[in-house]
Amino acid sequence: MALESGKDALVIFTPSGKRGRFALGTPVLSAARALGVDLDSVCGGRGICSKCQISPGYGSFAKHGVTVDADALSDWNAVEERYKSKRGLIEGRRLGCQAKVQGDVVIDVPPESQLHKQVIRKRAEARQITLDPSVTLHYVEVAEPDMHDPSGDFERLTAALRDQWQIGQLRADLSVLTTLQPVLRKGGWKVTVALHRAEESDIPRIMHIWPGLYEGTVYGMAVDLGSTTIAGHLCDLRTGEVLASSGLMNPQIRFGEDLMSRVSYSMMNPTGAADMTTAVRAGMNALFTQVAAEAEIDIGLIMDAVFVCNPVMHHLLLGIDPFELGQAPFALATSGSLHLTAHDLELQMHPSARVYLLPCIAGHVGADAAAVALSEAPEKSEDLVLIVDVGTNAEILLGNREKVLACSSPTGPAFEGAQISSGQRAAPGAIERVEIDPATKEPRFKVIGSDLWSDEPGFDEAVASTGITGICGSGIIEMVAEMRIAGIVDGPGLIGSPAQTGTTRCFLDGRTHSYMVWDGSATGGPVITVTNRDIREIQMAKAALYSGARLLMDKFGVDHVDRIVLAGAFGAHISPKHAMVLGMIPDVPLDKVTSAGNAAGTGARIALLNRGARAEVEKTVAQIHKIETAIEPRFQEHFVNASNIPNAVEGFPHLFKILTLPELNFNSGGGDASGGRRRRRG
Amino acid sequence: MALESGKDALVIFTPSGKRGRFALGTPVLSAARALGVDLDSVCGGRGICSKCQISPGYGSFAKHGVTVDADALSDWNAVEERYKSKRGLIEGRRLGCQAKVQGDVVIDVPPESQLHKQVIRKRAEARQITLDPSVTLHYVEVAEPDMHDPSGDFERLTAALRDQWQIGQLRADLSVLTTLQPVLRKGGWKVTVALHRAEESDIPRIMHIWPGLYEGTVYGMAVDLGSTTIAGHLCDLRTGEVLASSGLMNPQIRFGEDLMSRVSYSMMNPTGAADMTTAVRAGMNALFTQVAAEAEIDIGLIMDAVFVCNPVMHHLLLGIDPFELGQAPFALATSGSLHLTAHDLELQMHPSARVYLLPCIAGHVGADAAAVALSEAPEKSEDLVLIVDVGTNAEILLGNREKVLACSSPTGPAFEGAQISSGQRAAPGAIERVEIDPATKEPRFKVIGSDLWSDEPGFDEAVASTGITGICGSGIIEMVAEMRIAGIVDGPGLIGSPAQTGTTRCFLDGRTHSYMVWDGSATGGPVITVTNRDIREIQMAKAALYSGARLLMDKFGVDHVDRIVLAGAFGAHISPKHAMVLGMIPDVPLDKVTSAGNAAGTGARIALLNRGARAEVEKTVAQIHKIETAIEPRFQEHFVNASNIPNAVEGFPHLFKILTLPELNFNSGGGDASGGRRRRRG
Repeated sequence: MALESGKDALVIFTPSGKRGRFALGTPVLSAARALGVDLDSVCGGRGICSKCQISPGYGSFAKHGVTVDADALSDWNAVEERYKSKRGLIEGRRLGCQAKVQGDVVIDVPPESQLHKQVIRKRAEARQITLDPSVTLHYVEVAEPDMHDPSGDFERLTAALRDQWQIGQLRADLSVLTTLQPVLRKGGWKVTVALHRAEESDIPRIMHIWPGLYEGTVYGMAVDLGSTTIAGHLCDLRTGEVLASSGLMNPQIRFGEDLMSRVSYSMMNPTGAADMTTAVRAGMNALFTQVAAEAEIDIGLIMDAVFVCNPVMHHLLLGIDPFELGQAPFALATSGSLHLTAHDLELQMHPSARVYLLPCIAGHVGADAAAVALSEAPEKSEDLVLIVDVGTNAEILLGNREKVLACSSPTGPAFEGAQISSGQRAAPGAIERVEIDPATKEPRFKVIGSDLWSDEPGFDEAVASTGITGICGSGIIEMVAEMRIAGIVDGPGLIGSPAQTGTTRCFLDGRTHSYMVWDGSATGGPVITVTNRDIREIQMAKAALYSGARLLMDKFGVDHVDRIVLAGAFGAHISPKHAMVLGMIPDVPLDKVTSAGNAAGTGARIALLNRGARAEVEKTVAQIHKIETAIEPRFQEHFVNASNIPNAVEGFPHLFKILTLPELNFNSGGGDASGGRRRRRG
Repeated sequence: MALESGKDALVIFTPSGKRGRFALGTPVLSAARALGVDLDSVCGGRGICSKCQISPGYGSFAKHGVTVDADALSDWNAVEERYKSKRGLIEGRRLGCQAKVQGDVVIDVPPESQLHKQVIRKRAEARQITLDPSVTLHYVEVAEPDMHDPSGDFERLTAALRDQWQIGQLRADLSVLTTLQPVLRKGGWKVTVALHRAEESDIPRIMHIWPGLYEGTVYGMAVDLGSTTIAGHLCDLRTGEVLASSGLMNPQIRFGEDLMSRVSYSMMNPTGAADMTTAVRAGMNALFTQVAAEAEIDIGLIMDAVFVCNPVMHHLLLGIDPFELGQAPFALATSGSLHLTAHDLELQMHPSARVYLLPCIAGHVGADAAAVALSEAPEKSEDLVLIVDVGTNAEILLGNREKVLACSSPTGPAFEGAQISSGQRAAPGAIERVEIDPATKEPRFKVIGSDLWSDEPGFDEAVASTGITGICGSGIIEMVAEMRIAGIVDGPGLIGSPAQTGTTRCFLDGRTHSYMVWDGSATGGPVITVTNRDIREIQMAKAALYSGARLLMDKFGVDHVDRIVLAGAFGAHISPKHAMVLGMIPDVPLDKVTSAGNAAGTGARIALLNRGARAEVEKTVAQIHKIETAIEPRFQEHFVNASNIPNAVEGFPHLFKILTLPELNFNSGGGDASGGRRRRRG
């Protein structure tokens, strides 16, 4: 009910449940600030930005023990009326800075009025992101200069931000000082500033200044700089929304497919490292341009960026020769997080845009692994989680609340379809799913671009436009696993002869046998086979991955893990059952294997949207213990055992509950059994 | 005497007199550090930099009550012997880090071994400068990388600086990170770093890194950027020594002689301000190149710079359009001090060199006036001091320990010989001293380049090479004052006719009279005269200066000052007596007028060599109260009164104790008495 003047009214905010008593006439925004309720405002309570919209509730609220009268808030004042008539307001909404408390009231703060709003993530198990970006907007009204009390324009702006926003010390970029005077005068001594503060305790710096109330937004880029692809998310720093996501091939590929070939390139060519730095920065700028065009925004409004990448990319982006990463002891120039500017890295965004690089863990476990840790938070996991970011180089994390271990393992590019005779990148026409009949040894498959199996009616028509062009990474994993299940490949990795396998799809191909998947030659298409060398490549890649994971388990003192998270764009497409048949990942119940998608990119996005997450990941990384596989004698032992399919010594009890693998050994002296010992880092 | 092992020895350091007891075997450097004795070391006590040289004293020291035995210090060890044989050591010197205390001892720290040494200043009354630059050198030995405990090279360097130099948090410029790995390896994990710390509380940043022990030094530039000239001192940041001083004309002169004509240029030309910014930065770079060449040093070793300048130069150097300074209320874009980099201002020094700009006071009282305040410290003066920096624009400070007031007054370029018919800049051949015989009205003078008076034997021969070319600023002041003393000019500023003055040196020259100083036409030289318009120009200039000073005296509530300091290169050449006859400065005893030379340049040098001075001047400037002459009605009144020579209303009792001025009024209707009302700012 409305109260007599002089009495305090009870104000209850939802959804926070915060409540307090306030003198009649207190603006709702002031009450919210006093209670620490998260209510946004750019204009500082002047009724012009409308960011503080609230929904008062009327009637009886038994839950809160309060009845709200129709006159619990002040009538619409002129400012509010003008705002509504000019810009419109959703029915039932009021401006929190104008509506004043007149009686007990329940006030709902809708999500879009929350400054530190929760950013939606698709995965239910994922950590929430609370919006708290390093760049914020503030509208201020600045005193005009006075010859009787002379002071600089910047000093009066500083005083205004102190008085109106309680921001004490303040600095400005030189670019702000050079535009300050005309902007202040154009805005009639009213301006909006963009402040950058990497950490709450930092002295804020003004990065940009607009005349009057700036009603637009500002943007940030979260970039996952991979050896093969560069992927970026453009985010609205005021809503946390991803406005556009885009990717392109890393232009460094022309210097070498995998990381080690790029390190070699830098060793062999005097300007090699510099050339690759130029290339990757150009790629970055191409990505920014592409994403800005896609979202139809001004690239100059991108004011913050977060980068995650492996150590070689990290060094090349910074302009550091990756020479030392090419040889033991794999010393990083620096592993700490870095605060830089767009200018430092020659990036085309806002001229004063800030850039943050997540810390690297150590050696070849980089900022991308740190970002995965930020996204998947193994250090907060109750159960023991193995996180595998499958790429040309696999980063592996194992841990729980007690401790987290990490290593890197050079899987090479086989999982991406490279160095496989019929391999290709994931694209329409590529075989991505495979089943082989254990009785007939006949394959059926699906290609990217169609949902039909190859033995289903209409398949030929469905693939007419794309053709059947090769096998992609997830396809080759299923293919080799299915060949093992169907008895076409034995444990040591040898393809059997027609006699041994009972199918003419196996045929002598040089000194070893190959398996015919698809003969398109009649229609001018490719002949798709799996050679014994292909099997060797997959064996090496999966053995590298498994032995890294197994080494971490040794160091942790365990023989099994509770769950497995497959990260990386590629991880999302892997069939857990087939990966386990291959012995690529340790044995767990199949429903304990989940995909985290591009967790590194997500980690970058978290660090972009929430400043606190940066300090958090720096702390986490400092506590992650890095294991260097190169100096661990057991790694070689695990690698040799893991070369078998699934493994020469380890049981897979959970896997064998749902299937059995034939006991086979095709070795009759003709196999290229030594072909697979090479290792690469990629 | 040497003591038994286990007992403590008394160690007394001179000249500090600090003393303490130390366990036998304590290195002298450690004892010095424990007592806070200022003993330098770059290598951190490894016996390789020799910065910690000390002189032990032996025998009986009655003053200290101690007798020092010959074995009070340990014998020369191998490190010390090797240093002495390779590099040499002054007789009697030891290395403080190697010599160990064995008994009671008196240790003298010679000036060059003091880290915070006193920098010599010529003037006895001037404040001392304690060397404490923002860039310091530190030698460290860094742990090698270890695969069993992987860490980044930068992180190990940080740990080494923490352990060996007690420097906690640390950052590095990106340019250091890009060179870190090869430099560490080249130096065998021993490196010297240059650290920058603007204030003691700042997180230090590594600016540069050298392999091994860097035995060179680093440099800084103190620059006084004036409207007419740019003057710079190149200083050794390890000794405080000025290695070279140089100056050049401000290349902006082509855009206008005085400040206001440059502000106009920027208003009239779309790219005017940008053109002038480019010009002044180019001039700065020319100065740096010139000074570095003169001192024969690598320009890339200039790592710090301090700039002082008036507000228009300040804005143009920063790239800020000085538009607002051309009109009331004369608002500065920013008046605070600025920390920038060489890159921000496109300066060619070390690529990461730091730049510090002193704060401006307000309006047209700039960082040059702040630098004068830093050098002359009016806020610490027991008596009331008037400090006048005479240039195209005069900055005037008045104050004592209670308060300090400041204003700026547009004297125009007359004091620099400009806009005077026979005026010229101070250069060989220019008349700089003048005497006129009150009886005969005949002048005699000295020209720059000769010590002889023009009526002394040998004068003609002495000036044969330079000629007699014109009158410089200090010459015109003496000339007009002598004309007033000799009765050639009256109080209102009119030159008398031949009849009124009794000399044919006065001749009708258009509607007014002129005074013939030197007729060189017979030998093809110039005819040097003083016209009545010249008198008017000087009247305006001196009236502007005096009325500014007088206004500050009003505001301070006083009618006289205790002493006067003339600053500015020109100030050093002004004859106090003649200045007072002109009524250019208030009346004080002549011995209370002193010259501070280029006090603004000295202030810049103090801020360069002592970090604490920066905080100090920022605090002082915040407390200086700026008076805007334009809005003070009394300024016009003072100006009109001060147009008279010496003054229409004020007495000059101290002056009239030593001379009398004839009471004259030549006005017979023919004078151009209104010709002097224009004012300029320049």
